[in-house]
Amino acid sequence: ENDSIPKQTVRYGSRGFQFSSADGKYQLNFGGRLQFRFATPSDQDPITYDDFFEQKQNLFKINRARLKVGGHAYQPWLKYYFEYELGASRLLDFRVMVEKWPWLSFKVGQWKSEYSRERVISSGNQQMMERSIINRPFTLDRQQGVTIYGRWDGGGLADFNYHLMVLTGAGIGARNNDDEKLMYSGRLQWNILGDGVAMSGSALTHYKRPVASLAWAGATNTSQYTRYSSQGGGQLVGFEGSNAGQYQIDQYLLESTLKYKSFSWHSEFHRKSIFDNQLLELTKLQGWFVQGGFILNPQAIDKKKPLLELASRYAFFQPNRALQRNNEEEISLAFNCFFSGHQNKLTADITHFDFEQKSVNREASGWRFRIQYDFSF
Amino acid sequence: ENDSIPKQTVRYGSRGFQFSSADGKYQLNFGGRLQFRFATPSDQDPITYDDFFEQKQNLFKINRARLKVGGHAYQPWLKYYFEYELGASRLLDFRVMVEKWPWLSFKVGQWKSEYSRERVISSGNQQMMERSIINRPFTLDRQQGVTIYGRWDGGGLADFNYHLMVLTGAGIGARNNDDEKLMYSGRLQWNILGDGVAMSGSALTHYKRPVASLAWAGATNTSQYTRYSSQGGGQLVGFEGSNAGQYQIDQYLLESTLKYKSFSWHSEFHRKSIFDNQLLELTKLQGWFVQGGFILNPQAIDKKKPLLELASRYAFFQPNRALQRNNEEEISLAFNCFFSGHQNKLTADITHFDFEQKSVNREASGWRFRIQYDFSF
Amino acid sequence: ENDSIPKQTVRYGSRGFQFSSADGKYQLNFGGRLQFRFATPSDQDPITYDDFFEQKQNLFKINRARLKVGGHAYQPWLKYYFEYELGASRLLDFRVMVEKWPWLSFKVGQWKSEYSRERVISSGNQQMMERSIINRPFTLDRQQGVTIYGRWDGGGLADFNYHLMVLTGAGIGARNNDDEKLMYSGRLQWNILGDGVAMSGSALTHYKRPVASLAWAGATNTSQYTRYSSQGGGQLVGFEGSNAGQYQIDQYLLESTLKYKSFSWHSEFHRKSIFDNQLLELTKLQGWFVQGGFILNPQAIDKKKPLLELASRYAFFQPNRALQRNNEEEISLAFNCFFSGHQNKLTADITHFDFEQKSVNREASGWRFRIQYDFSF
Repeated sequence: ENDSIPKQTVRYGSRGFQFSSADGKYQLNFGGRLQFRFATPSDQDPITYDDFFEQKQNLFKINRARLKVGGHAYQPWLKYYFEYELGASRLLDFRVMVEKWPWLSFKVGQWKSEYSRERVISSGNQQMMERSIINRPFTLDRQQGVTIYGRWDGGGLADFNYHLMVLTGAGIGARNNDDEKLMYSGRLQWNILGDGVAMSGSALTHYKRPVASLAWAGATNTSQYTRYSSQGGGQLVGFEGSNAGQYQIDQYLLESTLKYKSFSWHSEFHRKSIFDNQLLELTKLQGWFVQGGFILNPQAIDKKKPLLELASRYAFFQPNRALQRNNEEEISLAFNCFFSGHQNKLTADITHFDFEQKSVNREASGWRFRIQYDFSF
Repeated sequence: ENDSIPKQTVRYGSRGFQFSSADGKYQLNFGGRLQFRFATPSDQDPITYDDFFEQKQNLFKINRARLKVGGHAYQPWLKYYFEYELGASRLLDFRVMVEKWPWLSFKVGQWKSEYSRERVISSGNQQMMERSIINRPFTLDRQQGVTIYGRWDGGGLADFNYHLMVLTGAGIGARNNDDEKLMYSGRLQWNILGDGVAMSGSALTHYKRPVASLAWAGATNTSQYTRYSSQGGGQLVGFEGSNAGQYQIDQYLLESTLKYKSFSWHSEFHRKSIFDNQLLELTKLQGWFVQGGFILNPQAIDKKKPLLELASRYAFFQPNRALQRNNEEEISLAFNCFFSGHQNKLTADITHFDFEQKSVNREASGWRFRIQYDFSF
Repeated sequence: ENDSIPKQTVRYGSRGFQFSSADGKYQLNFGGRLQFRFATPSDQDPITYDDFFEQKQNLFKINRARLKVGGHAYQPWLKYYFEYELGASRLLDFRVMVEKWPWLSFKVGQWKSEYSRERVISSGNQQMMERSIINRPFTLDRQQGVTIYGRWDGGGLADFNYHLMVLTGAGIGARNNDDEKLMYSGRLQWNILGDGVAMSGSALTHYKRPVASLAWAGATNTSQYTRYSSQGGGQLVGFEGSNAGQYQIDQYLLESTLKYKSFSWHSEFHRKSIFDNQLLELTKLQGWFVQGGFILNPQAIDKKKPLLELASRYAFFQPNRALQRNNEEEISLAFNCFFSGHQNKLTADITHFDFEQKSVNREASGWRFRIQYDFSF
């Protein structure tokens, strides 16, 4: 008799409100996120020596304002997702995924290339307030293209996630490519302990047994760009070319991550070479960071009380390995208060930057303080 | 037995479709608004003498196209709201509010500063078709920051709404501030009769007993701007600076509003001083308007028939009180047909503008006619 | 007793998830679409002779990323619809329609002018991958304005659809008109067989009896533009004016369309004259195309299996009828695989372009290959 009662088709979940058709073939998730920040004396990481001597500011800003819509249609395994940055009016993600088999999935569209863990972790799920200074020179950021990916779990130590990507390599939102050459990238993650580590910072549940992953990734591309960001392709300091196919870029990374009890760890080591096909110059870059944190009151997890976390990071960047004494350092300390996990949290951080440019005999350093509120619905 | 029947979690309300979780902790409202306008010989208010002699136009336009999403998450008192202008692709509002206690609430994000009633009333809830000529020079418009606010109802005459705001003062969408100085603003509204007057124009219900409010508000800021609009910070006519902290601005307003039977009243008086820190010049501006209207067929309220309203406004602006004979006047007559209150209405207006610039011995005047359809879903 | 069970108010339909109020007066449809494309050696149709000699590319791109929201409010016949292009951050449609009587409907807002069938068919419902080379010079594209329209079915052959439009003629998103002159356009479609042909390509159901329509349409406008696109008003090759009311444009089209069994047909013939009020020059343009296709496996319709279609188009354009030997040709072959009709489909096409500019004694031709995936949710 109760068969005529409609199924509960509206519920709230971790991706916002969720609507499902009665047959389970269609689903729509609708959510959003606000990231609101106060910063002084400025918010951006310094890029050049002169940045240390800019006008000091006190500023509030909506740093991120996201609309997120995803779900599946026609089949439970035919999934879609788009994310739109409302503040900058920019389409970030729009992808369709065929996830019928865990070990062999397909994706088309635009999304964050699965290269470095630091970049792939959503800005709403970070342990520190923001990514490190080495994200800017090494990230592939978002690209348009196709990928094959999956997880191969052969039992025991034989547990891997892989991604093989063919991308335009022209950056987010590009409607053209500079030439006939595409970007190719791959990532292999070995889940050495447990189920591996999900793409989210901080140890917000109590990990009785450790989970850990190691990853290797590489990429090659020929284009007019030397770096990518959420604003598309651009140039690193010292590069000013704009010709199709001017820069041949090859890069790789090594990454480790671990969560155990209330402690979490994450490190990355990056190398990248840029060959200028016009000036016939080769530049080699290197950078790395280590980062860790622990929950101060793990007993609050069971009580569903706010969690407090202390975390820290050290990052080091060499813009040109031929000039060994030129380098950039970041030391950050962050304090998180998770009211409802990453969905509703307050973060304060203090950072010290130190730039040494001994090749031109100068150095600069400075402090920054920020407070951030991050709210998802 | 019927306990297993799911709660009705989808309904249509004044904020569009509303989705609620069964436990009441989560709610999502989804709505939108279209404002479509015909205008001749132009739509914008004249700003300068030359504007009276521009090419005449007949124009249709989507004047506003809004997407509105709000609700609460985690707790009924933890609220969010964003509003996006689809036509201009601009994020207008994105704010999170802690409204646990009526007398002490908190808000972070970007929203219309609670300064003048004319600006705070949504463009969809206005009595006249558009705000007056004095909105441009005096509004703080939308800013990013934090605020404490609430209503203190001590019984009888002791009934106040207050807002204390700390804002960047760099205008909507700003990602930086020019200097270390922030904008500070406050508003105190005294609800002298009844419950005070809500932030919406026209008397769309029959007010057996009068409701009335008086308000004072003030603001101070140092920045490179002399005015704000929905396009961010900008300059009033006669100001051309662009240096950080060039303009020190202090301003205040007095405001009255009343609704009784089918009549509604609204007035504002503004003063503002602009001190140019570079040229060491002080300019004082003054403006005011009075506005009133009444429902022509109040008996239609009970019959749920369309309501007709006639309303009028007179506004007066002195761009520089040192030049007493230079002033700008607006006289408007508006006719509203409310099919479903402010949610679905047709408005026609006719306006006469009169600019006197006796310091340079010239004047100009002109008429404007417009029709507007405003539809919310 | 079961009256207390709430009505099913959430369902998935052809317009995405659909939410309805219990009284049927309110409805909201929420959907989206991704169109993802690979192209080589470029995606755009050539416009000039030089375009044939551009840098070759291999490119992936999100060609279209649409958010679609529609429904009705207050009454079942008071409808609204908006469509937003997320990739370009551009409001495409926002319209309100009064559709109380089939023979007399009203619409205000911005939408695709009902001029040519090729343009009115959504980019997600096309038979070929993209519109023909003659769409660019002849389309009115989207405009803002008002229209009266309807279908008059007098029985037998007396079956017509009509549209009478008054538009600003300043293109999508315009906030001003250049002068006092508006654009006027009309379309009359005669449904000579059956119910006429809906605005969607390909014969995706089996048409036992043929359906066919003939249409005439015309438009006149005076503005600073000689063409329109989804980016607004612009100029055809050879026109460079920018003065208000510089170009007087008059144009008309003849159109035929037919679907029978698994075959579909569509043709258009266009003429347009452009009079330059400054240079006092008259230019006459002409273009036409024919297009047809058939389902290769019509037996799959009943089995709900993917449908395969082969389709082809020939298009011919004369930019200036006074230079008879200058013309542009397109021949396209497209292969469609419809997984779920137009909602989820894969398309491959190959196109040959041939430009003859015998007045300057040169010609150029080239091939293009593309693959596209189109997914609606």
